[in-house]
Amino acid sequence: MSSPERTINFTRGVPADDAFPAAELADCVTAVLRERPVQVLQYGPSTGFLPLREWLAERHGVPVDHVLVGNGSLPFIDLLGWALLERGDTVLVESPTYDRTLTLLRRHGVRIVGVPISGGGLDLDALEAAVRATPPRLLYTIPDFQNPAGATATLAVRRRVAELAAEHGFWILEDAPYRPLRYRGTELVSLRELSPARTLHMSSFTKQISPGVRVGYLIGDARVVARIAKAAEDTYITPNLLGEAAVYEFCRRGLLEPQLERLRALYRPRLEAACAAMRRWLPDAQWTEPDGGFFLSLTLGAGLRSEDLRARAAAVKLNLSDGRGFFPDPADGERFVRLPFCALTPEEIGEGIRRMADVVADAGRRA
Amino acid sequence: MSSPERTINFTRGVPADDAFPAAELADCVTAVLRERPVQVLQYGPSTGFLPLREWLAERHGVPVDHVLVGNGSLPFIDLLGWALLERGDTVLVESPTYDRTLTLLRRHGVRIVGVPISGGGLDLDALEAAVRATPPRLLYTIPDFQNPAGATATLAVRRRVAELAAEHGFWILEDAPYRPLRYRGTELVSLRELSPARTLHMSSFTKQISPGVRVGYLIGDARVVARIAKAAEDTYITPNLLGEAAVYEFCRRGLLEPQLERLRALYRPRLEAACAAMRRWLPDAQWTEPDGGFFLSLTLGAGLRSEDLRARAAAVKLNLSDGRGFFPDPADGERFVRLPFCALTPEEIGEGIRRMADVVADAGRRA
Repeated sequence: MSSPERTINFTRGVPADDAFPAAELADCVTAVLRERPVQVLQYGPSTGFLPLREWLAERHGVPVDHVLVGNGSLPFIDLLGWALLERGDTVLVESPTYDRTLTLLRRHGVRIVGVPISGGGLDLDALEAAVRATPPRLLYTIPDFQNPAGATATLAVRRRVAELAAEHGFWILEDAPYRPLRYRGTELVSLRELSPARTLHMSSFTKQISPGVRVGYLIGDARVVARIAKAAEDTYITPNLLGEAAVYEFCRRGLLEPQLERLRALYRPRLEAACAAMRRWLPDAQWTEPDGGFFLSLTLGAGLRSEDLRARAAAVKLNLSDGRGFFPDPADGERFVRLPFCALTPEEIGEGIRRMADVVADAGRRA
Repeated sequence: MSSPERTINFTRGVPADDAFPAAELADCVTAVLRERPVQVLQYGPSTGFLPLREWLAERHGVPVDHVLVGNGSLPFIDLLGWALLERGDTVLVESPTYDRTLTLLRRHGVRIVGVPISGGGLDLDALEAAVRATPPRLLYTIPDFQNPAGATATLAVRRRVAELAAEHGFWILEDAPYRPLRYRGTELVSLRELSPARTLHMSSFTKQISPGVRVGYLIGDARVVARIAKAAEDTYITPNLLGEAAVYEFCRRGLLEPQLERLRALYRPRLEAACAAMRRWLPDAQWTEPDGGFFLSLTLGAGLRSEDLRARAAAVKLNLSDGRGFFPDPADGERFVRLPFCALTPEEIGEGIRRMADVVADAGRRA
């Protein structure tokens, strides 16, 4: 192999550096600090900046007491650990799933049970078997453009998940940060829409506007929202109102839809480059072709192990995540590779997948 | 008693609504978003916005890896619960102490032992007895203008606390949010200065600039800082960089010292009004006269109970906190009253204390 000059990082799932509407946000902060200085700068309710809650409530067609705004969406999982979960409760997650969720669930001492997913979402037979084996308190699922797999749950999967939650009385935690970032195909109904009484729908402006503003939201049952808000008050009193006010003003001015359209136009060619490179360089690979979001994933052939692959990849300046971190049982992730494609140019994506194909072929020859 | 028209709230310890430098903060956010858009808006390290850490490190004369910036200071106590404490560990606190700290310590299942304080800080005999009875993991103390008592630890208390920490190997968590808000007298050496190796010094810009920006910081041992930063990453990935960047730019421009001078000029007459009213209306009360901060406290004579007092006060439109919440053993707070004076005008403070004196006298007559 030739020695490549530039390192390519297929590691963290972050937005592109040129995705951020910095000048618009500066205008928005300035306006809201002029118009509502005390509401932004004083202590406020732990439920978040009220005008943003009202905006979200109207957008999602729910009463405002169904909406909670906080410092990104991940902290809601920690707060749920205090507000809704008890040690020893069973929580079902997709296998693979978002690694940081696993870390927080483990912190709270719950029993984590993984349910396999394919490109169409949860394996329904495995889900039913898991639900019948031990009634879970919660199912954590990312139905749209899943992190890390890139899978999107089919309509049939969504309907069956909603039915099972009603039958067995568990909560659905629907994590939907990528949902507005669909690059092809048609939006599917959300679990919240199918099962509003049993679903806690979580999202954020991290992928839509910026991670640094740290604004996430949760929509669901008013009593659960109130319990999470109490845990939030105990933890941080008030979320960061400056970021929430900036996001509110951005949304109020009608800037969110043009921003999302700009992101889709930026990221769509990156997804296409990733898919084209997979077909060209790894024609025999087992991979999930996503319709949106940040991630494409593949499963290597038998014989290659995550640690070897990452070491060989690093030698050609290709950085990969450890696939094992995404699985409730890390051993299941030995052959799993996640490729975040949004923060790389189409050229970098093509070159990265070409390098990976070389590494895989080279490893195959030596095996 | 005449029926007063306006409600007076001696409840939450919040800054005055006219304390916030809204226009300056808008300029600061605009500048920093223009100069460092990606550093502010992208994901960043869980240790916080690096320029602000560097500014704090220089201000406090420590290496930058001794400084952690987060979403206010209270969340550091929750993170310490994961990073430094184990269930069953003994944690010493002042009695009374900040009620939200008690809530978080209880959440993490530690054994809380209260050590009485007077106007000069911790009772050293009681502290020594507690330390010898069970070696604590941590002592949580607010040496300057304590919340809720208004007490300031004497130099002798500070020195002995530092000695005991060295002798017995426990951590000192020095919570110092009010330290820059001294309205009279001379600043005393901090526990961090006396015992840099054993002290985790915590503060925030909440009282100095604004609660809504949600920016706190912790200064201490680099290994402990790294462990808290790991717990922070697991919890929220990145703190709110927009608020941190705004605060950084505010400090970099030299606006912090004039802001603090403005706050001292705003709050000093409020403290003076509170002390004058105490002398005039409650000449026999047992109370702590503070030299700074947000709080004055008093202990009622025997016979009056917190619940009765609050009910009688509410009847004359005077809202008081439940004193019991500030004590590790709530029964110790039956006769304790905290009076936050910063968010009220001198007239409101005088009127509030006059009403309280009426209520106390009235209750005494009926008893």
